[in-house]
Order: sequence, then C-alpha cells, then structure tokens
Amino acid sequence: MTHPAHPELRVIGITGIPLVRAGDDLAALILEAAAAQATPLADGDALVVTQRVVSKAEGRVVPLDNFEPSPFARDFAQRMEKDPRLVEAVLRESTRVVRQVGGVLITQTRHGYICANAGVDASNVGGQDLVSLLPLNPDASCRRIRDAARARLGVDLGVVMTDTFGRPWREGHTNVAIGVAGLRPLRSYIGMPDMDGRELRVTTICVADELAAAAELVMGKVDAVPAAIVRGYRFERGEGSSAELVRARELDLFL
Amino acid sequence: MTHPAHPELRVIGITGIPLVRAGDDLAALILEAAAAQATPLADGDALVVTQRVVSKAEGRVVPLDNFEPSPFARDFAQRMEKDPRLVEAVLRESTRVVRQVGGVLITQTRHGYICANAGVDASNVGGQDLVSLLPLNPDASCRRIRDAARARLGVDLGVVMTDTFGRPWREGHTNVAIGVAGLRPLRSYIGMPDMDGRELRVTTICVADELAAAAELVMGKVDAVPAAIVRGYRFERGEGSSAELVRARELDLFL
Repeated sequence: MTHPAHPELRVIGITGIPLVRAGDDLAALILEAAAAQATPLADGDALVVTQRVVSKAEGRVVPLDNFEPSPFARDFAQRMEKDPRLVEAVLRESTRVVRQVGGVLITQTRHGYICANAGVDASNVGGQDLVSLLPLNPDASCRRIRDAARARLGVDLGVVMTDTFGRPWREGHTNVAIGVAGLRPLRSYIGMPDMDGRELRVTTICVADELAAAAELVMGKVDAVPAAIVRGYRFERGEGSSAELVRARELDLFL
Repeated sequence: MTHPAHPELRVIGITGIPLVRAGDDLAALILEAAAAQATPLADGDALVVTQRVVSKAEGRVVPLDNFEPSPFARDFAQRMEKDPRLVEAVLRESTRVVRQVGGVLITQTRHGYICANAGVDASNVGGQDLVSLLPLNPDASCRRIRDAARARLGVDLGVVMTDTFGRPWREGHTNVAIGVAGLRPLRSYIGMPDMDGRELRVTTICVADELAAAAELVMGKVDAVPAAIVRGYRFERGEGSSAELVRARELDLFL
C-alpha cells in the first residue's frame, strides 16, 4: 500500500492495562499493553492517557476521611445533601469558586482549569470511601511517560493527559487536555495566508484538546481503555506546557 | 488482517474537492472526491464537513454591501476601526450580544450558538468584499448530504457540520459541531455502572463535538481538506438535532 495522498490518522485504543494501583509504573503498563496488542508505540505518535489512571498510579486516590470538613463545607453539604468530606476535598483542590448554584460547584483548580468539583471524583476508585484527585503536576506525569518511552523503546512521543469537562453554553461533556509533554498544545496559523491569500480569521487551534477529544471516541467512559494512540498526526514537537492552555484572567471575557 | 480486539478508528481527510460555488451539488462533489481517493463512504461512517464549504454551496457567501450599517454598527465600527458593513452583518446574524469588549463581539446566533462574530467570516471567500454567513439550517444541510449518500451509494452516514469556535477559560479554538444528521450528538451514560459498580459521574458526552475535533486534525485551516470521514466509531444512529447541543439558558450557569 502506498502512502495516501490525503491526510489520515488512526486512533487506537490500548486495552489490557491491568487495574492500576498506587506506586505502579504506569508507563511500563501502557507500553507493555500496547506491545501486546501489536500496536507498539512509534516515533511521532501522540499517546493520550486519562487523568483517572494517572491519579491511581500516583497515589492521588485517597480516603475521604482525609478531609475534615470546614464549617462552610459542612453547611453547604447539609443543605445540598452532599458528603461534607467530598465538598471539603473539592474546596482544598480549588483556588477559587467560580459558580456555586444549587448543589453545583464550579471551581478553578490549582493548575488553573475551571471545571465541576475541581476534578475530584468519587466514582470508580476502588472503594466506597475514596476520592480521586487530579494529579499534582500533569505535565510532569506526561513527561515521565514520554521519558520511559524514549528509554525503553527509543521513540519520541507527544503525551497528552485528559479529563472530561463540561463547558458553558453547550450540552454534554468532552475530553480536554490537562497535561502535555513533547508537543506544542497550540498550533498557530498567525500570518498564514488562506487560499485567497488573506490572513486567516482563526489563528490558534488547541490541538491538545482535539487530540483529547479524538481519543475519547475510542476510550469511552468505563475505564477499560485508559489510553489511546493517535498515529499520523504531525504535531509540533517541543516541550509544551499545559499552562499554555489556560487563558490569562485579564484576557478572559467570561471570568 | 483480523478485526482488532482493541477499539480503533480512522480519520480520513477528503482532498480533491474543487473550489465550491453557489448552487454546486456539494454532496456529489464530496462523494466523488472520496471515491477518487479510493476511500468511498461506507455504511456507518461519520462524514464531517466544514461550515465554510457548505456556506459557499448554499449561497451564504454574500457581498458586504448587502449590509447597510445601522447607527449603532457605524459608531462601534468607527471606534474600533472595523468595517461597519461587517459589524452590521454580525448583528443581523445574532439574536443577542453576549459580550462586547473592545473590538470583540461575542453573540448568540439564530441557531443558539455563542461565538465570535456570529460565525461571520470575511476571510477566504473568493473576494475582498464578500462575507461568509453560517448556513441557515445546518441540520437540513447535513440531511441533504446524508440523503444523497443513501440515494447514490446506498450507505447510511452520520453527518456533522463543523465550525471553529473559541471558548471561555481555555486558549485556542477547537472544532465543534453546528449541524448533525443521522446520529445522536450526545451519548448518555446515565445509569451505567463503572468498573466498581457505581454510577458514573460524567453522564453525557458530546460525541458530535468530539467527531468535529477529531476531523480538524486532518482538515487544518487552509480549506484544502473541507471534509473528513471518521470510520470505525459506532455512533448511535437516529435523527439527531443540533438543538440538542445548545444548553437551555435557564440551565446555563454562564449566561
């Protein structure tokens, strides 16, 4: 088969990753699972991995009892019939509350992301009284996976960590990037002429979020596919930082 | 090659579509281009098509002189050094102004979408004094393409029309869906247990937006690839409506 003249990419779910526990070598588990399904990672692949599995490996799944509720958390929880320890966990993961309406708590995380419950998740973490918190430094987590792939396989990957966020104005959640390594998360078209020779109106695409979204289509929501390969997309290589994804408050019209 | 046990999809850009003009049979042009590159559309494919090329085919690229500026448009344009006819076009495409800060105009379109300039675009439309407006009824445009594929090829497609929108809080634009046919744009996980047997926290995924995002990775921003096939994603078939994508104002915390 000759190389196609049209652009084409594949999104390949990685299955067969065992249940991940704190301290596990996640990179090794992912690389081995990919190899076992005869789709070993190759140079230039983008590897997308869910926050959930990284949090498990990094010990960010913790007992709810770690969170002694403050009076504010206790009062809110009681009025809204929530677990006060869970409310406390959300507040401790947050730098500020962006919206608090009914039982909904939209906050800004320490990384700068705005999402429901600061990404704290009480479901699917291996026990009734545990919560999953976002990784402390998602970029560092991505770099560890990238470094492992380089060391073990000699391949240079882009790595994207995803979580599933809601957004204003539109129904449904989508996967977005919360950590990156080895790729530029934004692609700039500034100064590039369109087919009419004029400058383009839309000048910056968040390819990290688009890679995250594409991967969700094979990963689904039940944790059997915690990682995926996007193969054939020529991302711009570079250090990259998820800080680039967060709009500065003074530039944001909706904060 | 056996069917892989892991989930996998392909995103295939369609090239070779000639420059589209008002009145062209866009569906025919897309189907012929796909066939010419040996990737004819198949049953169950999701076909993603950019708003831009649909607007061209549907005569929604119109002279700027069609828009006689109101006093408000004229005043705003003068202060912000914009073309008053373009400002007028944006306002006529809008039901309300959501943010007006400096020269930025974020409005809600007649379809319900909130985006910059109501999707009005003065770039890349075949002439200096033309603007591209969003299709009047993107779902109907998608249905026409779906119907043509059924009639010509006997295949049942999902069709998604995309545009490239910014969003609050995050840098960069991403592709989102503005029209659908033949697929349910939202996938519900309500009541579905996760691997621990608990109900999932995130319950509705906007797969139409994720398909749009995945397609952008092969389409890029320079119009050479105005359509793409997503093959291997088992979307839920159904009539579907882009109205499902728009959050009702009374449910939106950010309006």
